[in-house]
Amino acid sequence: MPSDLSRNDPRPKVRLYVEQALGQGQHIAVTQDQAHYLGNVMRMPEGAEVAVFNGKAGEWRARIAGLSKRGGTLTCEAPVAPQLDPPDLWLLFAPIKKARTDFIVEKAVEMGASRILPVQTEFTNAERIRRDRLQAHAIEAAEQSAGTFVPEVAELQRLDRLLADWPEGRSLWWADESLAGATLAEPAPAPAAILIGPEGGFSPAERARLKALPQIRRLSLGPRILRADTAAVAALTLWQARHGDWPHQT
Amino acid sequence: MPSDLSRNDPRPKVRLYVEQALGQGQHIAVTQDQAHYLGNVMRMPEGAEVAVFNGKAGEWRARIAGLSKRGGTLTCEAPVAPQLDPPDLWLLFAPIKKARTDFIVEKAVEMGASRILPVQTEFTNAERIRRDRLQAHAIEAAEQSAGTFVPEVAELQRLDRLLADWPEGRSLWWADESLAGATLAEPAPAPAAILIGPEGGFSPAERARLKALPQIRRLSLGPRILRADTAAVAALTLWQARHGDWPHQT
Repeated sequence: MPSDLSRNDPRPKVRLYVEQALGQGQHIAVTQDQAHYLGNVMRMPEGAEVAVFNGKAGEWRARIAGLSKRGGTLTCEAPVAPQLDPPDLWLLFAPIKKARTDFIVEKAVEMGASRILPVQTEFTNAERIRRDRLQAHAIEAAEQSAGTFVPEVAELQRLDRLLADWPEGRSLWWADESLAGATLAEPAPAPAAILIGPEGGFSPAERARLKALPQIRRLSLGPRILRADTAAVAALTLWQARHGDWPHQT
Repeated sequence: MPSDLSRNDPRPKVRLYVEQALGQGQHIAVTQDQAHYLGNVMRMPEGAEVAVFNGKAGEWRARIAGLSKRGGTLTCEAPVAPQLDPPDLWLLFAPIKKARTDFIVEKAVEMGASRILPVQTEFTNAERIRRDRLQAHAIEAAEQSAGTFVPEVAELQRLDRLLADWPEGRSLWWADESLAGATLAEPAPAPAAILIGPEGGFSPAERARLKALPQIRRLSLGPRILRADTAAVAALTLWQARHGDWPHQT
Protein backbone atom coordinates (compact mmCIF):
# COMPACT_ATOMS: atom_id res chain seq x y z
CA MET A 1 0.00 0.00 0.00
CA PRO A 2 0.99 3.63 -0.36
CA SER A 3 3.67 5.38 1.56
CA ASP A 4 3.23 7.30 4.75
CA LEU A 5 6.94 7.87 5.26
CA SER A 6 7.75 11.30 6.56
CA ARG A 7 10.31 13.09 4.47
CA ASN A 8 12.24 16.28 4.63
CA ASP A 9 11.05 17.52 1.26
CA PRO A 10 7.84 19.40 0.59
CA ARG A 11 6.25 16.75 -1.62
CA PRO A 12 2.99 15.14 -0.52
CA LYS A 13 3.44 12.33 1.96
CA VAL A 14 1.15 9.94 0.16
CA ARG A 15 2.43 8.44 -3.09
CA LEU A 16 0.30 6.27 -5.31
CA TYR A 17 1.21 4.11 -8.25
CA VAL A 18 -1.38 4.37 -11.01
CA GLU A 19 -1.54 2.73 -14.40
CA GLN A 20 -2.87 5.63 -16.42
CA ALA A 21 -1.06 8.25 -18.46
CA LEU A 22 -0.13 11.36 -16.47
CA GLY A 23 -0.49 14.91 -17.75
CA GLN A 24 -1.77 18.26 -16.66
CA GLY A 25 -5.52 18.17 -16.01
CA GLN A 26 -5.66 14.42 -16.57
CA HIS A 27 -8.29 12.58 -14.48
CA ILE A 28 -6.95 9.49 -12.78
CA ALA A 29 -9.10 6.69 -11.46
CA VAL A 30 -7.88 5.11 -8.23
CA THR A 31 -8.72 1.59 -7.12
CA GLN A 32 -11.07 0.68 -4.31
CA ASP A 33 -8.08 -0.11 -2.08
CA GLN A 34 -6.42 3.21 -2.86
CA ALA A 35 -9.66 5.11 -2.21
CA HIS A 36 -10.04 3.33 1.12
CA TYR A 37 -6.46 4.19 2.03
CA LEU A 38 -6.84 7.86 1.13
CA GLY A 39 -10.24 8.39 2.71
CA ASN A 40 -10.40 6.02 5.65
CA VAL A 41 -6.81 5.30 6.65
CA MET A 42 -5.22 8.67 5.93
CA ARG A 43 -8.51 10.57 6.33
CA MET A 44 -7.65 12.88 3.46
CA PRO A 45 -10.41 15.25 2.34
CA GLU A 46 -11.38 16.18 -1.19
CA GLY A 47 -8.83 18.64 -2.56
CA ALA A 48 -5.93 17.10 -0.62
CA GLU A 49 -2.64 16.68 -2.42
CA VAL A 50 -1.13 13.32 -3.27
CA ALA A 51 1.83 12.29 -5.42
CA VAL A 52 1.27 9.87 -8.28
CA PHE A 53 3.58 7.99 -10.63
CA ASN A 54 2.99 5.39 -13.30
CA GLY A 55 6.49 4.00 -13.70
CA LYS A 56 7.18 5.94 -16.87
CA ALA A 57 6.44 9.64 -16.49
CA GLY A 58 8.11 10.73 -13.27
CA GLU A 59 6.21 11.90 -10.21
CA TRP A 60 3.24 14.26 -10.48
CA ARG A 61 1.25 16.25 -7.99
CA ALA A 62 -2.44 15.42 -8.00
CA ARG A 63 -5.51 16.34 -5.96
CA ILE A 64 -8.35 14.21 -4.71
CA ALA A 65 -11.38 15.10 -6.84
CA GLY A 66 -13.71 12.57 -5.27
CA LEU A 67 -13.74 9.35 -3.26
CA SER A 68 -16.42 6.72 -2.88
CA LYS A 69 -16.61 3.20 -1.52
CA ARG A 70 -15.88 1.79 -4.95
CA GLY A 71 -12.98 3.98 -5.99
CA GLY A 72 -12.16 7.56 -6.63
CA THR A 73 -10.76 10.17 -8.95
CA LEU A 74 -7.70 12.37 -8.77
CA THR A 75 -6.86 15.34 -10.93
CA CYS A 76 -3.28 15.44 -12.12
CA GLU A 77 -1.75 18.92 -11.74
CA ALA A 78 1.95 19.31 -12.39
CA PRO A 79 5.19 17.30 -12.63
CA VAL A 80 7.19 17.18 -9.41
CA ALA A 81 10.16 14.92 -10.18
CA PRO A 82 11.54 13.48 -13.40
CA GLN A 83 11.35 9.83 -14.27
CA LEU A 84 14.33 7.95 -12.84
CA ASP A 85 14.91 4.59 -14.47
CA PRO A 86 17.46 2.38 -12.73
CA PRO A 87 20.48 1.04 -14.61
CA ASP A 88 20.01 -2.18 -16.57
CA LEU A 89 20.71 -4.45 -13.62
CA TRP A 90 18.76 -7.65 -13.02
CA LEU A 91 18.53 -9.42 -9.68
CA LEU A 92 18.25 -13.21 -9.82
CA PHE A 93 17.42 -14.98 -6.57
CA ALA A 94 16.12 -18.32 -5.38
CA PRO A 95 12.80 -17.84 -3.56
CA ILE A 96 12.94 -18.82 0.06
CA LYS A 97 10.48 -18.47 2.88
CA LYS A 98 7.62 -16.13 2.03
CA ALA A 99 8.65 -13.27 4.31
CA ARG A 100 12.26 -13.35 3.10
CA THR A 101 11.15 -13.44 -0.53
CA ASP A 102 9.00 -10.37 0.10
CA PHE A 103 12.00 -8.68 1.65
CA ILE A 104 14.22 -9.45 -1.33
CA VAL A 105 11.67 -7.93 -3.70
CA GLU A 106 11.33 -4.84 -1.49
CA LYS A 107 15.11 -4.47 -1.21
CA ALA A 108 15.63 -4.93 -4.96
CA VAL A 109 13.23 -2.07 -5.65
CA GLU A 110 14.78 0.24 -3.07
CA MET A 111 18.27 -0.57 -4.34
CA GLY A 112 17.39 0.11 -7.96
CA ALA A 113 17.26 -3.25 -9.72
CA SER A 114 15.61 -2.98 -13.13
CA ARG A 115 14.18 -6.49 -13.23
CA ILE A 116 13.62 -9.17 -10.61
CA LEU A 117 13.97 -12.80 -11.68
CA PRO A 118 13.06 -15.57 -9.22
CA VAL A 119 14.99 -18.70 -10.17
CA GLN A 120 14.46 -22.31 -9.25
CA THR A 121 17.69 -24.07 -8.28
CA GLU A 122 18.37 -27.66 -7.28
CA PHE A 123 18.33 -26.71 -3.60
CA THR A 124 15.35 -24.31 -3.85
CA ASN A 125 12.26 -25.53 -2.10
CA ALA A 126 9.85 -23.28 -3.98
CA GLU A 127 8.03 -24.95 -6.82
CA ARG A 128 5.97 -21.90 -7.61
CA ILE A 129 5.69 -18.27 -6.61
CA ARG A 130 2.74 -15.88 -6.50
CA ARG A 131 4.05 -13.57 -9.20
CA ASP A 132 1.11 -11.16 -8.90
CA ARG A 133 1.62 -10.83 -5.14
CA LEU A 134 5.35 -10.17 -5.57
CA GLN A 135 4.62 -7.61 -8.30
CA ALA A 136 2.20 -5.83 -5.95
CA HIS A 137 4.94 -5.89 -3.36
CA ALA A 138 7.33 -4.25 -5.82
CA ILE A 139 4.78 -1.50 -6.48
CA GLU A 140 4.38 -0.89 -2.75
CA ALA A 141 8.15 -0.69 -2.33
CA ALA A 142 8.37 1.88 -5.14
CA GLU A 143 5.61 3.92 -3.47
CA GLN A 144 7.51 3.83 -0.18
CA SER A 145 10.99 4.51 -1.53
CA ALA A 146 10.06 7.59 -3.56
CA GLY A 147 10.98 5.68 -6.71
CA THR A 148 9.32 6.41 -10.04
CA PHE A 149 10.16 3.05 -11.61
CA VAL A 150 8.64 -0.36 -10.80
CA PRO A 151 10.79 -3.34 -11.79
CA GLU A 152 9.01 -6.25 -13.40
CA VAL A 153 8.93 -9.45 -11.36
CA ALA A 154 9.39 -12.30 -13.82
CA GLU A 155 7.83 -15.75 -13.56
CA LEU A 156 9.83 -18.39 -11.71
CA GLN A 157 12.34 -19.93 -14.13
CA ARG A 158 14.74 -22.82 -13.81
CA LEU A 159 18.28 -21.56 -13.35
CA ASP A 160 19.78 -24.12 -15.73
CA ARG A 161 17.45 -23.05 -18.53
CA LEU A 162 18.09 -19.39 -17.87
CA LEU A 163 21.86 -19.96 -17.97
CA ALA A 164 21.61 -22.06 -21.13
CA ASP A 165 20.08 -19.07 -22.86
CA TRP A 166 21.99 -16.30 -21.07
CA PRO A 167 22.25 -13.02 -23.08
CA GLU A 168 25.71 -12.73 -24.57
CA GLY A 169 26.42 -9.15 -23.52
CA ARG A 170 25.10 -9.34 -19.95
CA SER A 171 27.62 -9.99 -17.19
CA LEU A 172 26.49 -12.13 -14.28
CA TRP A 173 27.88 -11.31 -10.84
CA TRP A 174 27.62 -14.37 -8.68
CA ALA A 175 27.83 -14.11 -4.90
CA ASP A 176 29.96 -17.20 -4.35
CA GLU A 177 30.22 -18.18 -0.70
CA SER A 178 33.24 -20.38 -1.35
CA LEU A 179 35.22 -17.24 -2.20
CA ALA A 180 35.15 -15.84 1.34
CA GLY A 181 38.54 -14.31 1.91
CA ALA A 182 39.41 -14.10 -1.79
CA THR A 183 39.90 -10.96 -3.81
CA LEU A 184 36.75 -9.38 -5.17
CA ALA A 185 36.22 -9.39 -8.91
CA GLU A 186 35.55 -5.93 -10.21
CA PRO A 187 31.90 -5.74 -11.28
CA ALA A 188 31.23 -5.22 -14.96
CA PRO A 189 29.04 -2.30 -16.09
CA ALA A 190 25.48 -2.60 -17.37
CA PRO A 191 23.92 -4.63 -18.81
CA ALA A 192 24.52 -6.78 -15.77
CA ALA A 193 22.84 -9.18 -13.40
CA ILE A 194 23.43 -10.32 -9.84
CA LEU A 195 22.76 -13.89 -8.75
CA ILE A 196 22.03 -14.65 -5.10
CA GLY A 197 21.92 -18.33 -4.23
CA PRO A 198 19.53 -20.23 -2.00
CA GLU A 199 20.37 -20.85 1.66
CA GLY A 200 21.60 -24.34 0.86
CA GLY A 201 23.98 -23.01 -1.78
CA PHE A 202 24.27 -24.26 -5.34
CA SER A 203 24.64 -27.89 -6.33
CA PRO A 204 27.99 -29.07 -7.75
CA ALA A 205 26.43 -29.25 -11.21
CA GLU A 206 25.14 -25.69 -10.90
CA ARG A 207 28.50 -24.46 -9.67
CA ALA A 208 30.25 -26.07 -12.64
CA ARG A 209 27.76 -24.54 -15.04
CA LEU A 210 28.16 -21.10 -13.47
CA LYS A 211 31.95 -21.27 -13.56
CA ALA A 212 31.85 -22.22 -17.24
CA LEU A 213 29.68 -19.27 -18.26
CA PRO A 214 31.84 -16.71 -20.09
CA GLN A 215 29.83 -13.81 -18.65
CA ILE A 216 30.35 -14.91 -15.05
CA ARG A 217 32.14 -12.83 -12.44
CA ARG A 218 32.52 -14.19 -8.95
CA LEU A 219 31.90 -11.93 -6.01
CA SER A 220 32.71 -12.36 -2.34
CA LEU A 221 30.56 -10.74 0.31
CA GLY A 222 32.93 -11.11 3.22
CA PRO A 223 33.87 -13.76 5.75
CA ARG A 224 30.44 -14.26 7.34
CA ILE A 225 27.54 -16.13 5.77
CA LEU A 226 24.83 -13.68 4.74
CA ARG A 227 21.16 -14.46 4.45
CA ALA A 228 19.86 -14.13 0.91
CA ASP A 229 18.11 -10.80 1.56
CA THR A 230 21.25 -9.34 3.17
CA ALA A 231 23.41 -10.63 0.33
CA ALA A 232 21.08 -9.08 -2.24
CA VAL A 233 21.38 -5.63 -0.66
CA ALA A 234 25.16 -5.95 -0.24
CA ALA A 235 25.77 -7.02 -3.85
CA LEU A 236 23.40 -4.36 -5.23
CA THR A 237 25.22 -1.75 -3.11
CA LEU A 238 28.64 -2.69 -4.47
CA TRP A 239 27.36 -2.61 -8.04
CA GLN A 240 25.40 0.64 -7.69
CA ALA A 241 28.31 2.44 -6.04
CA ARG A 242 30.62 1.33 -8.86
CA HIS A 243 28.50 1.47 -12.01
CA GLY A 244 25.01 2.50 -11.04
CA ASP A 245 22.99 5.61 -10.31
CA TRP A 246 24.52 6.17 -6.89
CA PRO A 247 27.01 8.95 -6.51
CA HIS A 248 30.54 7.69 -6.98
CA GLN A 249 33.17 7.90 -4.33
CA THR A 250 35.75 10.60 -4.74
CA MET B 1 18.20 -20.25 18.15
CA PRO B 2 20.96 -22.24 16.53
CA SER B 3 21.63 -22.48 12.85
CA ASP B 4 20.33 -25.16 10.56
CA LEU B 5 21.69 -23.57 7.41
CA SER B 6 23.10 -26.01 4.96
CA ARG B 7 26.61 -25.19 3.92
CA ASN B 8 29.17 -26.44 1.52
CA ASP B 9 31.82 -27.03 4.16
CA PRO B 10 32.21 -30.13 6.29
CA ARG B 11 31.59 -28.43 9.64
CA PRO B 12 28.61 -29.52 11.72
CA LYS B 13 25.35 -27.91 10.70
CA VAL B 14 24.34 -26.95 14.21
CA ARG B 15 26.22 -24.05 15.80
CA LEU B 16 25.67 -23.05 19.40
CA TYR B 17 26.79 -19.99 21.29
CA VAL B 18 27.94 -20.88 24.79
CA GLU B 19 29.29 -18.73 27.57
CA GLN B 20 31.96 -21.05 28.90
CA ALA B 21 35.65 -21.29 28.12
CA LEU B 22 36.45 -23.64 25.26
CA GLY B 23 39.34 -26.09 25.23
CA GLN B 24 40.11 -29.69 24.43
CA GLY B 25 38.18 -32.06 26.70
CA GLN B 26 36.26 -29.19 28.30
CA HIS B 27 32.71 -30.02 29.40
CA ILE B 28 30.15 -27.46 28.30
CA ALA B 29 26.73 -27.08 29.84
CA VAL B 30 23.97 -26.16 27.41
CA THR B 31 20.76 -24.41 28.36
CA GLN B 32 17.34 -25.99 28.51
CA ASP B 33 16.41 -24.32 25.21
CA GLN B 34 19.58 -25.53 23.51
CA ALA B 35 19.04 -29.07 24.82
CA HIS B 36 15.47 -29.00 23.52
CA TYR B 37 16.70 -27.79 20.15
CA LEU B 38 19.39 -30.47 19.87
CA GLY B 39 17.31 -33.38 21.12
CA ASN B 40 13.75 -32.61 20.07
CA VAL B 41 13.98 -30.26 17.10
CA MET B 42 17.11 -31.59 15.41
CA ARG B 43 16.72 -35.09 16.92
CA MET B 44 20.44 -35.40 17.42
CA PRO B 45 21.61 -38.46 19.37
CA GLU B 46 24.29 -38.65 22.02
CA GLY B 47 27.70 -38.52 20.34
CA ALA B 48 26.51 -36.25 17.52
CA GLU B 49 28.77 -33.42 16.46
CA VAL B 50 27.92 -29.76 16.96
CA ALA B 51 29.93 -26.56 16.54
CA VAL B 52 30.30 -24.22 19.49
CA PHE B 53 31.70 -20.72 19.92
CA ASN B 54 31.83 -18.33 22.83
CA GLY B 55 32.57 -15.07 21.02
CA LYS B 56 36.25 -15.14 21.98
CA ALA B 57 37.92 -18.43 21.12
CA GLY B 58 36.90 -19.24 17.56
CA GLU B 59 34.73 -22.19 16.62
CA TRP B 60 35.22 -25.63 18.18
CA ARG B 61 33.90 -29.05 17.38
CA ALA B 62 32.03 -30.65 20.26
CA ARG B 63 29.97 -33.78 20.85
CA ILE B 64 26.76 -34.29 22.72
CA ALA B 65 27.65 -36.08 25.96
CA GLY B 66 24.14 -36.11 27.37
CA LEU B 67 20.79 -34.35 27.10
CA SER B 68 17.91 -34.11 29.56
CA LYS B 69 14.78 -32.03 29.88
CA ARG B 70 16.62 -29.50 31.98
CA GLY B 71 19.78 -29.06 29.94
CA GLY B 72 22.70 -31.03 28.67
CA THR B 73 26.42 -31.43 28.36
CA LEU B 74 28.76 -31.28 25.40
CA THR B 75 32.38 -32.30 25.26
CA CYS B 76 34.64 -29.89 23.46
CA GLU B 77 37.03 -31.67 21.09
CA ALA B 78 39.11 -29.53 18.75
CA PRO B 79 39.29 -26.06 17.23
CA VAL B 80 37.71 -25.76 13.81
CA ALA B 81 38.01 -22.08 12.87
CA PRO B 82 39.95 -19.18 14.37
CA GLN B 83 38.30 -16.31 16.18
CA LEU B 84 37.30 -13.60 13.72
CA ASP B 85 36.65 -10.25 15.37
CA PRO B 86 35.06 -7.62 13.13
CA PRO B 87 36.73 -4.27 12.60
CA ASP B 88 36.04 -1.54 15.17
CA LEU B 89 32.84 -0.35 13.49
CA TRP B 90 29.77 0.66 15.46
CA LEU B 91 26.26 0.81 14.04
CA LEU B 92 23.97 3.49 15.48
CA PHE B 93 20.31 3.30 14.55
CA ALA B 94 16.98 4.64 15.73
CA PRO B 95 14.73 1.74 16.77
CA ILE B 96 11.61 1.44 14.68
CA LYS B 97 8.90 -1.17 14.51
CA LYS B 98 9.84 -4.34 16.36
CA ALA B 99 10.32 -6.53 13.29
CA ARG B 100 12.50 -3.95 11.55
CA THR B 101 14.60 -3.43 14.68
CA ASP B 102 15.17 -7.18 14.85
CA PHE B 103 16.23 -7.11 11.23
CA ILE B 104 18.71 -4.31 11.79
CA VAL B 105 20.34 -6.21 14.63
CA GLU B 106 20.48 -9.38 12.53
CA LYS B 107 21.94 -7.49 9.56
CA ALA B 108 24.51 -5.69 11.71
CA VAL B 109 25.81 -9.03 12.98
CA GLU B 110 25.96 -10.60 9.52
CA MET B 111 27.68 -7.53 8.11
CA GLY B 112 30.32 -7.45 10.85
CA ALA B 113 29.50 -4.51 13.09
CA SER B 114 31.45 -4.64 16.34
CA ARG B 115 28.87 -2.86 18.50
CA ILE B 116 25.19 -2.02 18.03
CA LEU B 117 23.92 1.20 19.58
CA PRO B 118 20.19 1.96 19.50
CA VAL B 119 19.71 5.72 19.70
CA GLN B 120 16.70 7.80 20.60
CA THR B 121 16.19 10.72 18.23
CA GLU B 122 13.59 13.48 18.21
CA PHE B 123 11.55 11.61 15.61
CA THR B 124 12.04 8.15 17.14
CA ASN B 125 8.91 6.66 18.59
CA ALA B 126 10.68 4.13 20.80
CA GLU B 127 10.97 5.15 24.44
CA ARG B 128 12.56 1.89 25.42
CA ILE B 129 13.93 -1.26 23.87
CA ARG B 130 14.16 -4.80 25.14
CA ARG B 131 17.95 -4.91 25.23
CA ASP B 132 18.08 -8.54 26.39
CA ARG B 133 15.82 -9.63 23.54
CA LEU B 134 17.93 -7.77 20.98
CA GLN B 135 21.11 -9.27 22.46
CA ALA B 136 19.60 -12.75 22.12
CA HIS B 137 18.77 -11.87 18.55
CA ALA B 138 22.40 -10.89 17.93
CA ILE B 139 23.54 -14.25 19.32
CA GLU B 140 21.12 -16.07 17.05
CA ALA B 141 22.36 -14.12 14.05
CA ALA B 142 25.97 -15.02 14.89
CA GLU B 143 24.98 -18.70 15.17
CA GLN B 144 23.32 -18.51 11.75
CA SER B 145 25.98 -16.52 9.94
CA ALA B 146 28.91 -18.73 10.95
CA GLY B 147 30.33 -15.80 12.88
CA THR B 148 32.50 -16.30 15.94
CA PHE B 149 31.91 -12.82 17.38
CA VAL B 150 28.74 -11.46 18.98
CA PRO B 151 28.45 -7.67 19.01
CA GLU B 152 27.19 -6.07 22.19
CA VAL B 153 23.80 -4.39 21.90
CA ALA B 154 24.00 -1.24 24.03
CA GLU B 155 21.17 0.30 26.03
CA LEU B 156 19.03 2.88 24.24
CA GLN B 157 20.77 6.27 24.47
CA ARG B 158 19.72 9.75 23.46
CA LEU B 159 21.49 10.78 20.27
CA ASP B 160 22.21 14.30 21.50
CA ARG B 161 23.93 12.98 24.62
CA LEU B 162 25.91 10.45 22.62
CA LEU B 163 27.07 13.14 20.21
CA ALA B 164 27.96 15.53 23.03
CA ASP B 165 30.38 12.92 24.30
CA TRP B 166 31.51 11.46 20.97
CA PRO B 167 34.98 9.83 21.05
CA GLU B 168 37.52 12.11 19.46
CA GLY B 169 39.19 9.58 17.20
CA ARG B 170 36.07 7.84 15.91
CA SER B 171 34.67 8.98 12.56
CA LEU B 172 30.91 8.99 12.18
CA TRP B 173 29.50 8.15 8.77
CA TRP B 174 26.04 9.60 8.50
CA ALA B 175 23.61 8.37 5.85
CA ASP B 176 22.19 11.76 4.96
CA GLU B 177 19.12 11.54 2.73
CA SER B 178 19.41 15.15 1.70
CA LEU B 179 22.63 14.26 -0.12
CA ALA B 180 20.92 12.12 -2.77
CA GLY B 181 22.72 12.82 -6.01
CA ALA B 182 25.79 14.33 -4.34
CA THR B 183 29.28 12.93 -4.35
CA LEU B 184 30.00 10.29 -1.74
CA ALA B 185 32.42 11.12 1.03
CA GLU B 186 35.17 8.57 1.29
CA PRO B 187 34.65 6.56 4.48
CA ALA B 188 37.32 6.90 7.14
CA PRO B 189 39.03 3.79 8.50
CA ALA B 190 38.42 2.26 11.94
CA PRO B 191 37.61 3.28 14.58
CA ALA B 192 34.42 4.29 12.88
CA ALA B 193 30.66 4.35 13.30
CA ILE B 194 27.69 4.44 10.94
CA LEU B 195 24.53 6.36 11.84
CA ILE B 196 21.23 5.37 10.25
CA GLY B 197 18.37 7.77 10.88
CA PRO B 198 14.76 7.08 11.76
CA GLU B 199 12.11 6.91 9.02
CA GLY B 200 11.05 10.47 9.71
CA GLY B 201 14.61 11.70 9.31
CA PHE B 202 16.49 13.89 11.76
CA SER B 203 15.16 17.12 13.25
CA PRO B 204 16.72 20.41 12.14
CA ALA B 205 18.48 20.69 15.51
CA GLU B 206 19.89 17.19 15.15
CA ARG B 207 21.02 17.90 11.60
CA ALA B 208 22.82 21.05 12.74
CA ARG B 209 24.50 19.17 15.56
CA LEU B 210 25.60 16.38 13.23
CA LYS B 211 26.99 18.78 10.67
CA ALA B 212 28.99 20.57 13.36
CA LEU B 213 30.65 17.40 14.63
CA PRO B 214 34.31 17.35 13.48
CA GLN B 215 34.26 13.56 13.11
CA ILE B 216 31.25 13.58 10.79
CA ARG B 217 31.35 12.32 7.21
CA ARG B 218 28.21 12.47 5.17
CA LEU B 219 27.24 9.55 3.02
CA SER B 220 24.69 9.21 0.26
CA LEU B 221 22.97 5.93 -0.41
CA GLY B 222 21.59 6.74 -3.82
CA PRO B 223 18.56 8.48 -5.29
CA ARG B 224 15.85 6.32 -3.72
CA ILE B 225 14.75 6.43 -0.09
CA LEU B 226 15.92 3.31 1.72
CA ARG B 227 14.25 1.79 4.73
CA ALA B 228 16.47 1.84 7.80
CA ASP B 229 17.34 -1.85 7.59
CA THR B 230 18.27 -1.57 3.91
CA ALA B 231 20.31 1.56 4.59
CA ALA B 232 22.17 -0.21 7.40
CA VAL B 233 23.23 -3.06 5.13
CA ALA B 234 24.17 -0.70 2.29
CA ALA B 235 26.31 1.57 4.48
CA LEU B 236 27.98 -1.39 6.21
CA THR B 237 28.73 -2.88 2.77
CA LEU B 238 30.43 0.26 1.52
CA TRP B 239 32.52 0.54 4.66
CA GLN B 240 33.47 -3.15 4.84
CA ALA B 241 34.47 -3.24 1.17
CA ARG B 242 36.68 -0.19 1.68
CA HIS B 243 38.19 -0.58 5.14
CA GLY B 244 36.79 -3.73 6.67
CA ASP B 245 37.37 -7.45 6.69
CA TRP B 246 35.87 -8.01 3.26
CA PRO B 247 38.20 -8.71 0.41
CA HIS B 248 39.12 -5.55 -1.42
CA GLN B 249 38.37 -4.94 -5.04
CA THR B 250 41.23 -5.29 -7.44
